[in-house]
Amino acid sequence: MLIRPATAADSDMVWQILAPVIRAGETYALDRDMPREAALDYWFGADKTTFVAEAAGGQIAGTYYLRANQAGGGRHVANCGYMVAADAQGRGVARAMARHSFATALAQGFTAMQFNFVVASNLRAVALWQELGFIVLCTLPAAFDHPRLGMVDALVMHRRL
Amino acid sequence: MLIRPATAADSDMVWQILAPVIRAGETYALDRDMPREAALDYWFGADKTTFVAEAAGGQIAGTYYLRANQAGGGRHVANCGYMVAADAQGRGVARAMARHSFATALAQGFTAMQFNFVVASNLRAVALWQELGFIVLCTLPAAFDHPRLGMVDALVMHRRL
Repeated sequence: MLIRPATAADSDMVWQILAPVIRAGETYALDRDMPREAALDYWFGADKTTFVAEAAGGQIAGTYYLRANQAGGGRHVANCGYMVAADAQGRGVARAMARHSFATALAQGFTAMQFNFVVASNLRAVALWQELGFIVLCTLPAAFDHPRLGMVDALVMHRRL
Repeated sequence: MLIRPATAADSDMVWQILAPVIRAGETYALDRDMPREAALDYWFGADKTTFVAEAAGGQIAGTYYLRANQAGGGRHVANCGYMVAADAQGRGVARAMARHSFATALAQGFTAMQFNFVVASNLRAVALWQELGFIVLCTLPAAFDHPRLGMVDALVMHRRL
């Protein structure tokens, strides 16, 4: 799998990944009706470096962004968001992007990575982050209104790089 | 003390409050050299409701913003930032703004308030938030590079409304 910086030419395929995740509203704290342009502006934000994971045949299997979690005195801690294409689940795409993001963040001078809002009911993500060395710093009580489950917790997770 | 929505006409006085706090870089994770316009754009952001605390004589003694801490399924939790004018410290301005913010957030439908990044060395702020009912959900280790103290922790604090 080739993980490379995303370009504007990837927008359509990135949107194909973002759209179902945003519309489902189960894992990201983003407005479910967020328009395509707003979603792409967010994912390709000026504060972010955005990557895509290219499977064999040039198909985009996943995308992630890397940014500083805070500015100023907090800029040494990285933050990332990852999404995998619905038809590429279970193939290690998230894991490959995570490892790529750790190396990239380290190369950019970050010393740690923090996830601010991992929805606790997203068990697959929580398990993967823990397997990859993240610890749960705390639980944000009833922080996320899940469309099917109602109020669930969210987790702040942290990993030294 | 009158706490009221800020208007564009307050920009100069708000900047007089923001500038020393941002330039000092000891309490907010913002770039210390953030230009005036970027700072005002941030403080008066489209996602925020911004207020000023007017002391007797019309002087602006403090300012705060209120926003949703997350979008989508996380939009029921509020987030605020508060700054007090250097020459108005110790007069209960932060406390008055905090109480105003709790009432305003509750009226806007928020059910809790979260501070994502309280610099742990900002002892006065930490003590005030605890006195006003916030609990520390977790400590973000070495999350803030303090200009005088070096790496210090930051706190995630939470209060039900």
